[in-house]
Amino acid sequence: MDQKGYRRGSFQSATSDEDMLEIAGASMDFSMADDDPPLDREMGGFSSYNGGGMNGTSTMMDFLEEPLPGVGTYEDFNTIDWVREKSRDRDRHREITSRSKESTWALLHSVSDAFSGWLLMLLIGLLAGSLAGLIDISAHWMTDLKEGVCLAGFWFNHEHCCWKSNTTFTDRDKCPEWKSWSQLILGHGEGAFAYILNYLMYVIWALMFSLLAVLLVKGFAPYACGSGIPEIKTILSGFIIRGYLGKWTLVIKTITLVLAVSSGLSLGKEGPLVHVACCCGNILCHLFTKYRKNEAKRREVLSAAAAAGVSVAFGAPIGGVLFSLEEVSYYFPLKTLWRSFFAALVAAFTLRSINPFGNSRLVLFYVEFHMPWHLLELVPFILLGIFGGLWGAFFIRSNIAWCRRRKTTRLGKYPVLEVLVVTAITAILAFPNEYTRMSTSELISELFNDCGILDSSKLCEYVNDFNSTKGDDLPDRAAGPGVYTAMWQLALALIMKVFITIFTFGMKVPSGLFIPSMAVGAIAGRLLGVAVEQLAFYHHDWPIFSGWCSQGADCITPGLYAMVGAAACLGGVTRMTVSLVVIMFELTGGLEYIVPLMAAAMTSKWVADAIGREGIYDAHIRLNGYPFLEAKEEFSHKTRAMDVMRPRKNDPPLTVITQDSMSVEDVETIVSSTTYSGYPVVVSRTSQRLVGFVLRRDLIISIENARKKQDGIVSTSVICFTDYCPPLPPSSPSVLKLRSILDLSPFTVTDETPMEIVVDIFRKLGLRQCLVTHNGKLLGIITKKDVLKHIAQMANQDPDSILFN
Amino acid sequence: MDQKGYRRGSFQSATSDEDMLEIAGASMDFSMADDDPPLDREMGGFSSYNGGGMNGTSTMMDFLEEPLPGVGTYEDFNTIDWVREKSRDRDRHREITSRSKESTWALLHSVSDAFSGWLLMLLIGLLAGSLAGLIDISAHWMTDLKEGVCLAGFWFNHEHCCWKSNTTFTDRDKCPEWKSWSQLILGHGEGAFAYILNYLMYVIWALMFSLLAVLLVKGFAPYACGSGIPEIKTILSGFIIRGYLGKWTLVIKTITLVLAVSSGLSLGKEGPLVHVACCCGNILCHLFTKYRKNEAKRREVLSAAAAAGVSVAFGAPIGGVLFSLEEVSYYFPLKTLWRSFFAALVAAFTLRSINPFGNSRLVLFYVEFHMPWHLLELVPFILLGIFGGLWGAFFIRSNIAWCRRRKTTRLGKYPVLEVLVVTAITAILAFPNEYTRMSTSELISELFNDCGILDSSKLCEYVNDFNSTKGDDLPDRAAGPGVYTAMWQLALALIMKVFITIFTFGMKVPSGLFIPSMAVGAIAGRLLGVAVEQLAFYHHDWPIFSGWCSQGADCITPGLYAMVGAAACLGGVTRMTVSLVVIMFELTGGLEYIVPLMAAAMTSKWVADAIGREGIYDAHIRLNGYPFLEAKEEFSHKTRAMDVMRPRKNDPPLTVITQDSMSVEDVETIVSSTTYSGYPVVVSRTSQRLVGFVLRRDLIISIENARKKQDGIVSTSVICFTDYCPPLPPSSPSVLKLRSILDLSPFTVTDETPMEIVVDIFRKLGLRQCLVTHNGKLLGIITKKDVLKHIAQMANQDPDSILFN
Repeated sequence: MDQKGYRRGSFQSATSDEDMLEIAGASMDFSMADDDPPLDREMGGFSSYNGGGMNGTSTMMDFLEEPLPGVGTYEDFNTIDWVREKSRDRDRHREITSRSKESTWALLHSVSDAFSGWLLMLLIGLLAGSLAGLIDISAHWMTDLKEGVCLAGFWFNHEHCCWKSNTTFTDRDKCPEWKSWSQLILGHGEGAFAYILNYLMYVIWALMFSLLAVLLVKGFAPYACGSGIPEIKTILSGFIIRGYLGKWTLVIKTITLVLAVSSGLSLGKEGPLVHVACCCGNILCHLFTKYRKNEAKRREVLSAAAAAGVSVAFGAPIGGVLFSLEEVSYYFPLKTLWRSFFAALVAAFTLRSINPFGNSRLVLFYVEFHMPWHLLELVPFILLGIFGGLWGAFFIRSNIAWCRRRKTTRLGKYPVLEVLVVTAITAILAFPNEYTRMSTSELISELFNDCGILDSSKLCEYVNDFNSTKGDDLPDRAAGPGVYTAMWQLALALIMKVFITIFTFGMKVPSGLFIPSMAVGAIAGRLLGVAVEQLAFYHHDWPIFSGWCSQGADCITPGLYAMVGAAACLGGVTRMTVSLVVIMFELTGGLEYIVPLMAAAMTSKWVADAIGREGIYDAHIRLNGYPFLEAKEEFSHKTRAMDVMRPRKNDPPLTVITQDSMSVEDVETIVSSTTYSGYPVVVSRTSQRLVGFVLRRDLIISIENARKKQDGIVSTSVICFTDYCPPLPPSSPSVLKLRSILDLSPFTVTDETPMEIVVDIFRKLGLRQCLVTHNGKLLGIITKKDVLKHIAQMANQDPDSILFN
Repeated sequence: MDQKGYRRGSFQSATSDEDMLEIAGASMDFSMADDDPPLDREMGGFSSYNGGGMNGTSTMMDFLEEPLPGVGTYEDFNTIDWVREKSRDRDRHREITSRSKESTWALLHSVSDAFSGWLLMLLIGLLAGSLAGLIDISAHWMTDLKEGVCLAGFWFNHEHCCWKSNTTFTDRDKCPEWKSWSQLILGHGEGAFAYILNYLMYVIWALMFSLLAVLLVKGFAPYACGSGIPEIKTILSGFIIRGYLGKWTLVIKTITLVLAVSSGLSLGKEGPLVHVACCCGNILCHLFTKYRKNEAKRREVLSAAAAAGVSVAFGAPIGGVLFSLEEVSYYFPLKTLWRSFFAALVAAFTLRSINPFGNSRLVLFYVEFHMPWHLLELVPFILLGIFGGLWGAFFIRSNIAWCRRRKTTRLGKYPVLEVLVVTAITAILAFPNEYTRMSTSELISELFNDCGILDSSKLCEYVNDFNSTKGDDLPDRAAGPGVYTAMWQLALALIMKVFITIFTFGMKVPSGLFIPSMAVGAIAGRLLGVAVEQLAFYHHDWPIFSGWCSQGADCITPGLYAMVGAAACLGGVTRMTVSLVVIMFELTGGLEYIVPLMAAAMTSKWVADAIGREGIYDAHIRLNGYPFLEAKEEFSHKTRAMDVMRPRKNDPPLTVITQDSMSVEDVETIVSSTTYSGYPVVVSRTSQRLVGFVLRRDLIISIENARKKQDGIVSTSVICFTDYCPPLPPSSPSVLKLRSILDLSPFTVTDETPMEIVVDIFRKLGLRQCLVTHNGKLLGIITKKDVLKHIAQMANQDPDSILFN
């Protein structure tokens, strides 16, 4: 075997190509080989096979650049080791930096490497913004398709169609080019028959859209359903779900999201947009080695992509970044904050230049209020907060109960039927009521809107007293009949939305929660707002109104109540705080209204937390048994590491591998008779002094590889994890050296360590496992799954609900 | 000794009062004593002394509520142990929660405990907002006092004085009630003599203010000088500087800040306001046991207070929170984010209700631009970014060099003289130039301002062509003579500010950097903006202007350039990114201008980073040798724990204490012959198997206490750290049991652990020290100071610059 050649390769390869670093990552010790004794090593063994008869360093280097396939990768539905991934990236970075001094090309490479993160952010922003624009435009058009078609071109939506119209109408909605289905088929739009025809067409289109959506999801990308945020939270915390952010998911989710939104189901596109943006991020990661090959770096990109997703969903870049920070991300270094901000801005401006709403506005719901609020109004705002908290807790409970039933009973076997039934019910109930027939985001816009003089909607049908009007500033007025009708319709819409959303969220179509939650809150808020307004109008002599709401003054803004209600309900469901307020602040653009929003969001969170600690995303994570270690909840029990570690008191002792006295066969027996994903390596069974930790996957791959490709490795070969292997009699088979796959710096805690500290370590360092020692002797092991099970047990939940490692 | 009584006390005290938990915190094991054998324990020993002849549990409990004074506290200029502090808080919280089920009073206590954080935030917001208002008003008045006095009442400032005036003048600045000093003394304000008199009065007032400021700082609160942000960063990272956030510092800093700002020195009040807010936070912490007694919890409050400080400094609550997150804080859990936001909002609204600027605006510099920017303008914006980066790097280098000279030469011995000289030079140079005579924040306001039709300032003296004016929308115009004069004056002001600021920052008066940096950038930006504007006006036929800047169009907004320049310079000096852009965004209130700001901030950071990695605050931290472990920089060297740990290769072996074989005398010898702040406890010297870690301070206090108060403890008594102490011959003196002060869960890493991981652990867990093992045997110790020294060494800096532990 070419010993010298190997060592030259080992040193020189460190300056040749970045891919080599994957080896260095897989075996940290290898990259630090400078002070190794000149002995045969595992990789040397391979080199003798692969580079066999050839001389010359370049072949050697080529070989060495390729890591042992599989070593250092993860299986599906497993947790990554953050420490290892970050180490690998640092090794990589170190190499590039040190090489950059050597040649201009390497310097260029180093510079391009440094800027690749920014380039990636730019691309994510552009792609996410464009897709969001596409989704907005398509969904708008298809939503209108349920009601009619444009004769000037079937690809125009209602609003666009009437813009193109040359005729001027007082009511811009009614232009001759736009034909409702009854107008198109019957030639007129009046009468019961026309109404029934329109009704029928509405339901049929809705069913068609939702059928197509569920079939596409079922057939091509099962991961495309739902909002995706619970899974993205889990993935960002270090879990692997292959394909969840893949290109098929992206394509299918984009298409089906449009279909699902257009079908009129009680769902929104905001949550799924985060999923879409994360898919973009993940796919674009493949363009850059730095991100493609490192799970930790990729998660930084995904955090930024999530920010871009929210940024385009609401047109709120700062809110998006804070959402990613507060709600979604797990590991969020400051560098990511800055990059997320960049990606979110690019995405928002891309969307704006596409201009899907046709109003050059960045934000989804642009509102402008003119009147300040009064301190006493905090009472209704806090009431809305309480309502939001109650609704949030109620929604989470019912939705989780329903989803659990879907999982455990036969119901779950008919997803297509379920979608069709829910769509049919939604469409049938929705059509007769103007406020449910329109798309939910239009509804919210209308509810947020402060009635101006020229507003013609029913919600603004007040009894006008033009004598007291000064300029744009409308005083509080008596509600007209339109407002009363609208109130009834809104109340019915509220009841419908409250119940139908419970059954909608979790079906096999893309479905977001933000919009339905906001709609519930906005309706409740507007109802309360109008009630307070009328109270103030008719009873402005009451002491509570005196001093700030005299006759003819404009003191109550029902639109603000709707906004506060929306924030409260969204807060109750998702338990967002800062990001929620900042998103809402970006919608209004004035610090003026932050205090009401904050009061409502705080009340809502407290009320909801008092009923159930979990937000909807965490509840779904738990329902699915993902291994997610919540960073917000403090672990507050008195248990110690010894209570959680395995083996338990009466279990057989911990399975360990000794450093230089086990044969290949012994190890294979251990591996095949247990299912642990890693084994501690000790000096000897009697001393139990810990040397390191070896992963099952690496062990299997290395032994298999050595048996196939390395001469003299048989079942009786001794496996040696030390630097110097003990000399063996000449007749014995050659030694299999596996130091390179041994993790020499496993994390340890003592058996007396309080579990709160252990949980903290797992959380902050992103560990997969941690070894437990007592007075220097190895005693047991705690894995992330053990920690999660223990937390579940302490919270009186079923510890077996944690399914994955 | 009443053994049973003690044990009853031990169990029941766990449900009596929160203060008891301080013991539990100091000795984690004690609170978990349920499965202890009924043996004498250290605390039992004390109880026999203190509760001596008395029976009854209540006395016992009272005794147990008092921790051994000193155990669990820190010395000045030392680093706290985050893990221990957080454990103590969790223990405390756990007790309160478990007790809350027992009685209504305990439940109320638990609720009030939960809400005390919010109450504290409210108080901090109110106090910080009020102080900021007070500072603003006083500084405004005293700044004007340098130029004249109001006859209607000497306590009115110039602007206020002329509001009160009944006469209407075209120029609101000139009202009869306001008399300049020459008008007051000579009776007229014209002529050379009057000018000289005003000049003289200006310089005299400035000298008086600064003399008073430096004398107050020197005499009463030396910590009140400087901006305070470097120290606050260090304190938040877990360092103790007693008195730095005390009430004297608060009082003196508030007064001297007003004096320093009024003296016309080139400094701002924004940085010191953060210090003032943190003092408020720290002082208000004393109202709540939860925060008074726990260093980690208190730091959460201080993070929020820092956010409130920036919030009132700029009127930017979201920016303040992000500043605290990005720049100042070390440990920033999500709960703190939400609370910081609350504190920042309360502070901002308190300030607004005080209304120091008299315009009901929340923000310091309110700007409203009307015109969008063009993509090509990014070129000058990026140029401004480069300028900002260069200025930042230049400023940091020169300022640090000057401060180092002040520290090391005789210069530092005359702080009063230094202040007087700098003030005199500043005042003498400032008075003749209108733009340096006015206060820096006024200057920035004027530079940010977009010229309207009615603006009468010199900067807006354009050649008006009213034919082409449409409404409020002014086209680009030719600059008039006023603008040209202003340009010259601004250029001179720029040169003066650039140099004088270097000598000002670091003097023994409160001095912030934000405003001077922004002023430099704003001047440069305005100069460039006017240049581009005139270029576009005279050469609108050039290809680069064609298509977007035709004749008569308003295409260049010089105010925006000033703003971008200010952001670039501030970014270059402080290396803020997201918070900088968000603060600027909150000033303008429009997402429109985020892209220019971001482009400039990014360029500036990159340029400045290329010249020197450190921002001004980090540079000052390093200059002062504080033990600050930077969270932003990745450690990227290949060293391992064995290279950093002590003892080094040829040093004597590690000083250890054995668990049950050393006498009091032995331990006292070890303690007195070494200066380490803690000692590992091992099973035996030969095995070197680690049991735990004991702190020097705790050890000294416990032994002293036992010698004084416990019977039979003499120099030959054996100290025992185990649960069961080995039986001794009856003649030997009684055993001193110290298990309660032993930390049974010390952090360990293996000798092969890469330093990057060790640094990460120190950073994320907030450790003070970490033990190093090899194959289960104790090998050495790494302290935070060792880590910092190693980092300094790797960066080719002097490792001995790290002064504190």
